[in-house]
Amino acid sequence: MRKKILEMLKSADGDFISGEDIAEKLNVSRTAIWKHINKLKEKGYQIISKENRGYSLPEMPDILLPEIVQEELNTKIIAANLEKFIYFDSIDSTNKFAKKIANEGAKDGTVIVAEEQTGGKGRLNRDFFSPKSKSILFSLILRPNCLPKDAPKFTLAAAVSIIRAIEKFNLHAGIKWPNDIIFENKKVVGILTEMSAEIERVNFIVIGIGINANISAEEFPEDIKKIAASLSEMNGGKNILRVKFFRAVLEELDKIYSEINSDGFEKILELWRKYNVTLGNEIKIISADSGEKFFGKAVDIDEDGALIVETSDGLKTFYAGDVSIRKA
Amino acid sequence: MRKKILEMLKSADGDFISGEDIAEKLNVSRTAIWKHINKLKEKGYQIISKENRGYSLPEMPDILLPEIVQEELNTKIIAANLEKFIYFDSIDSTNKFAKKIANEGAKDGTVIVAEEQTGGKGRLNRDFFSPKSKSILFSLILRPNCLPKDAPKFTLAAAVSIIRAIEKFNLHAGIKWPNDIIFENKKVVGILTEMSAEIERVNFIVIGIGINANISAEEFPEDIKKIAASLSEMNGGKNILRVKFFRAVLEELDKIYSEINSDGFEKILELWRKYNVTLGNEIKIISADSGEKFFGKAVDIDEDGALIVETSDGLKTFYAGDVSIRKA
Repeated sequence: MRKKILEMLKSADGDFISGEDIAEKLNVSRTAIWKHINKLKEKGYQIISKENRGYSLPEMPDILLPEIVQEELNTKIIAANLEKFIYFDSIDSTNKFAKKIANEGAKDGTVIVAEEQTGGKGRLNRDFFSPKSKSILFSLILRPNCLPKDAPKFTLAAAVSIIRAIEKFNLHAGIKWPNDIIFENKKVVGILTEMSAEIERVNFIVIGIGINANISAEEFPEDIKKIAASLSEMNGGKNILRVKFFRAVLEELDKIYSEINSDGFEKILELWRKYNVTLGNEIKIISADSGEKFFGKAVDIDEDGALIVETSDGLKTFYAGDVSIRKA
Repeated sequence: MRKKILEMLKSADGDFISGEDIAEKLNVSRTAIWKHINKLKEKGYQIISKENRGYSLPEMPDILLPEIVQEELNTKIIAANLEKFIYFDSIDSTNKFAKKIANEGAKDGTVIVAEEQTGGKGRLNRDFFSPKSKSILFSLILRPNCLPKDAPKFTLAAAVSIIRAIEKFNLHAGIKWPNDIIFENKKVVGILTEMSAEIERVNFIVIGIGINANISAEEFPEDIKKIAASLSEMNGGKNILRVKFFRAVLEELDKIYSEINSDGFEKILELWRKYNVTLGNEIKIISADSGEKFFGKAVDIDEDGALIVETSDGLKTFYAGDVSIRKA
């Protein structure tokens, strides 16, 4: 019902439609229409009500609501129906919620999106800055048929998907191993991938993605100003439409996920190499395994997505760690 | 209170104690004692009530209740206090429950034990036969500081712990890669290890262990008779005390877990090699990765616990799969 009301308002293109007209067309009472309109207003739709004229919707709001995002969304698996798109105005952590419902059986391709996270965490339990409705915060549940050792490659694939969405907007960024999206050496997108697995198969993967969308440089807290950037900054200070960007990301994720399911990771690793800003550079890496620091030249990623570094002690392979680029 | 009543009954060594005596000693009413006694009976304690004589407990029942198991349990981390020992008379799956409470923060070393599982699963969602109170069914939550790629080694460590408990009972069994406990080529214990992890650290590991304890050969269903055995079968047809065996397993797990936390896996892999019945044999292995069959000689496990097989195409490494031994 609410979707139908929205469609009518949308097709009126900002003009007013009377409650009576809507009620008649949908065959319900005017009071019912009034109640639905109030619900839509609560959700964030800026509907104008005027006595004797009715209702008008001047523009669709830039809110990541299912009805808005899914309207023109072209995906096969990811967020492909209402059941697979869960929206929160505010939640502690989309990854936490995603893990909970995935344990209870949530489907392959389910997306949980929130305008605000009150307890959002980055990798290794680090805090994650995300002012309300200025970021794009979501978690994606995947159920691929693979081994636990394949999970890191999904995080590379997510990074590639986001870069491709960025390119669709004629903007440009790079990937720092394994999955940071980087603009002018500052981080624009953080990805936190988690999995539940048996030894010989993955139960599910949850990819949590936090995109700094319309945050100006001044808005970042002092301690992360030097290391954080946003899409609007990349866009010369102009805000981007979050709904549109979110759609593009979901579509790229969907394409790449289908590709992985049919052809494996080979092409993804190729694309990752193309977009990365780590390989070929002198880097410092702090191994997640031992906490030890290493210096050397990042030479390649292997077929598992691990980083190969040429150190003074020879080639070393890193499965996880923190990279900083010392010299391009 | 119930624990104190149990202690009094136990120290009476089968003699009767009057409700009045107990009530006086614990400073509560006789009705309160009567209620607690009823609760204990419900739990499975075979307490005898006689008018004018009071209560007696002829013997401690072989039930895996916390008060009974923890009585003489010597562990530092695993099941080390009441909060870390959760008992169910019946549950769908201890692993499922363990994953749920681990997601909600359950502590390192928490054990969930059940007399019966109504939806117990083995590896790869296979059914698991476990008649009530004749098996030892439990899940263990561990929170080691390690990478996802270390998880398979915990499953090897669990197998080694069980073998050591078996040896304490002067019985002998072997380990088939990766973690089946084998007696006369039949499986006595199944282990299902699951984990929740980020790419660069494990959140928690759940080790589900199902031990065929006092099941006679005839009791196994037709389709698994040829491949399943039990501790009582190993023990020449005599039942073992489940409580005592369970305690031994928890103590061995506790020792080995402490060892891993301080010294890593080296010694565990050595012990695994000592007890294994796979290495040196001609085997067939169905790769969990591809579903492909391979034939060859199992030559070693590597430092990650993966199986190395000498095939006609050279050495191959398997991270997960189903092994059958063709020729010793």
